[in-house]
Amino acid sequence: MKVPGRRSFIQKASMGTLMALSIPQLILTAFAEDDAKNKKIPLAKNEIVLFQGDSITDAGRARENFNVNDQKALGNGYAYLATADLLNDNPQKHLKIYNRGISGNKVYQLTERWEEDTFKLEPTVLSILIGVNDFWHMKKHGYSGTLETYRNDYKALLDKTKQKLPDLKLIIGEPFAILGTAVDASWFPAFKEYQEAAKEIANSYNAAFIPYQRIFDNALKLAPGEYWAPDGVHPSIAGARLMATAWLETIKG
Amino acid sequence: MKVPGRRSFIQKASMGTLMALSIPQLILTAFAEDDAKNKKIPLAKNEIVLFQGDSITDAGRARENFNVNDQKALGNGYAYLATADLLNDNPQKHLKIYNRGISGNKVYQLTERWEEDTFKLEPTVLSILIGVNDFWHMKKHGYSGTLETYRNDYKALLDKTKQKLPDLKLIIGEPFAILGTAVDASWFPAFKEYQEAAKEIANSYNAAFIPYQRIFDNALKLAPGEYWAPDGVHPSIAGARLMATAWLETIKG
Repeated sequence: MKVPGRRSFIQKASMGTLMALSIPQLILTAFAEDDAKNKKIPLAKNEIVLFQGDSITDAGRARENFNVNDQKALGNGYAYLATADLLNDNPQKHLKIYNRGISGNKVYQLTERWEEDTFKLEPTVLSILIGVNDFWHMKKHGYSGTLETYRNDYKALLDKTKQKLPDLKLIIGEPFAILGTAVDASWFPAFKEYQEAAKEIANSYNAAFIPYQRIFDNALKLAPGEYWAPDGVHPSIAGARLMATAWLETIKG
Repeated sequence: MKVPGRRSFIQKASMGTLMALSIPQLILTAFAEDDAKNKKIPLAKNEIVLFQGDSITDAGRARENFNVNDQKALGNGYAYLATADLLNDNPQKHLKIYNRGISGNKVYQLTERWEEDTFKLEPTVLSILIGVNDFWHMKKHGYSGTLETYRNDYKALLDKTKQKLPDLKLIIGEPFAILGTAVDASWFPAFKEYQEAAKEIANSYNAAFIPYQRIFDNALKLAPGEYWAPDGVHPSIAGARLMATAWLETIKG
């Protein structure tokens, strides 16, 4: 093996600096800047991981397919991409991973199907991403729920969950939106109150929190919104991978 | 920020050593041990990347969906997982990525649809994984092609391709099999001749070569074959992610 000379060393150091401004760094920066608690979730053997949420989590999954660790059952969004890394990186942990996101869901709809779609699976790690429809459908589809509805429904759901599954490890994703074909400037700052509510809830329920808004905002420095989420709500492939990498950042070892 | 003490430093160093035996290291080891040329593919702006192959590449893609960078069009196998990383890591490169793998294909079937499924897309980076059916269907389904058919068809296909697209960057994956519900000991060492042919072709056509067999063999040290490819041919989610990570290893910057 050839020993690298000084020039090569400097080139490598310089590449390292460039790489430090890449996607992983963009994500780490978002976590560092966010004022949530940056809690990490330890991943033990035999964990049962469940992804819950709306269309962003659903991501075209085959809803009639109830198999564990199944490609079609996991959809093709961030939940599947994160699962692929979890299963690949932890071949000796015997993880069981499910996705039960359903397109269009608001918090109260999670509550309606919680017994069947969460408790029956007996998750030990539960990841929830919910909130964009609680705001969007109020704005667009005449949904009557308010910020208070969102906050109260979310807390009641987690109270019930913690009571039934006291040792459950919880990951809460920040609902997010960027300007796009479905999102205009009128969303802001009103939507921010929903995001703050999600973060407060994460902190008070001792959940890991993923600051997706800040992560997408940082990503906009690299490419326009169309690249990450054309309609402003639903991530592209690149956006889904961004989310998966951020999600994995909450997992410790 | 607290300066880490010696104990913490040693713990971190020790963690580093453990991580060195993880999936990325397993893959790098396979590349290092393999006697192919370890060529790397530089990824420029505006590359058009095409994945070609059989069911392993196909992986349930929506074949009537011809959109570029589209989740359903890419399936849910290694091609999609590699695409997610490519698009996420290179937001400023304007990559266009397609999958045209078709389940059951042997080399001659690639040839039959090459005009439509390859030349029309004008790829600048072409990834091919083909060969397991050339062997399997001969063994099981009475296909009359031999090792010589595989080698000659593959070379003729690449001759035609290089003539039409002289600047094309080529990635060739090694066909692989591990013991599973569809693969028994009688596959070996006969199948190895097909793998050697693929490697020789990769070397003589100046292609990057992915030593998938060695990678899966190394992965078997971490978990049984059922974990990586239950039938011995079609990868699980963990196996698909293993392949994607290996595929990405052939891409330089």
